[in-house]
Amino acid sequence: MVGAIVLAAGEGRRFGGNKLIVTVDGKPVITRVLRALNGIDRVIIVGAYAEELLHYLRNEVVIYNPDYREGISTSIRLGLRFFQDYDAVLIVLGDMPLITRETINKIINAYREGCTAVIPTHKGLRGNPVLIHRLLFNELMRLKGDVGARELLRDRADVCYVECGPEVIMDIDTLDDLARIERIIKEYSEQ
Amino acid sequence: MVGAIVLAAGEGRRFGGNKLIVTVDGKPVITRVLRALNGIDRVIIVGAYAEELLHYLRNEVVIYNPDYREGISTSIRLGLRFFQDYDAVLIVLGDMPLITRETINKIINAYREGCTAVIPTHKGLRGNPVLIHRLLFNELMRLKGDVGARELLRDRADVCYVECGPEVIMDIDTLDDLARIERIIKEYSEQ
Repeated sequence: MVGAIVLAAGEGRRFGGNKLIVTVDGKPVITRVLRALNGIDRVIIVGAYAEELLHYLRNEVVIYNPDYREGISTSIRLGLRFFQDYDAVLIVLGDMPLITRETINKIINAYREGCTAVIPTHKGLRGNPVLIHRLLFNELMRLKGDVGARELLRDRADVCYVECGPEVIMDIDTLDDLARIERIIKEYSEQ
Repeated sequence: MVGAIVLAAGEGRRFGGNKLIVTVDGKPVITRVLRALNGIDRVIIVGAYAEELLHYLRNEVVIYNPDYREGISTSIRLGLRFFQDYDAVLIVLGDMPLITRETINKIINAYREGCTAVIPTHKGLRGNPVLIHRLLFNELMRLKGDVGARELLRDRADVCYVECGPEVIMDIDTLDDLARIERIIKEYSEQ
């Protein structure tokens, strides 16, 4: 069984506010991400904008991380405690509004014996969400500070890759990123 | 290792509002309860007044239970997922402002081999918080609706008891309960 840990605790400093409730193609970013996880067990880890986000997450299990300022590893750890008995977790960024259920399935299905993790790529660039097998849960629990799962997986020979579309590398760090994502959606819808 | 699941998700219908932030002897009820858990790993399960409670819980791991209306078993289950690897959990009611660290220690220390749970009593009346050994975690996970740990333990021969003060039977259901608790505090402080 796969559980999804949705990271939504950040301050969005480069964005200058709560980027997860900004609408993209008529829907809040976080809602789009959750739609891609339809039917998958998940917890959403919140921090900086906890109260505001809760309004959008009324039907979700949400964990407030009091240590969110200490970085992403603290959020991953909380989510992992929740999924200790699962076979694998997906570490999902809350700010990837182009991610789809199809791509999520592709990543899950790319898992095969011998992989301890699956990383989606686009044209060779490593993306997200990353799938981590339970064999690595202990190591994941030991991450410190603002270090995510990708750092843990760097240089491991037992990591598998699956080539996907641009949705796996397009997160929202800045207002420019948001504009770029809206352009891409427009282009696709005009095709 | 013992983890505490603090139940704070209820609507407080008989009280007519969020009883957990009412002050008792100058401190919010939920703050008093958490003070009694000082140094113990805990998660606070919220539901009905999630946003309001979050203001008081800035340094705590808080889990929002989207199914809080379905009853207490749904909150216990979420907390238990978090403490799967612990030896035991304490199921703590968020509305017991007279509970002290001393009484919590007494309950934890009353655990001995052969007990699957420890229930505090006052003059023979069963109270809270109840300590549940991991041997019962699976059964606890299977509770449904508004059924708490005490129902699970009814008629079990392997439950241990520890006699405590009135703090283990005094929760706040109504405004009258609140007035009674304030009277007790006044009496104690005048002694």
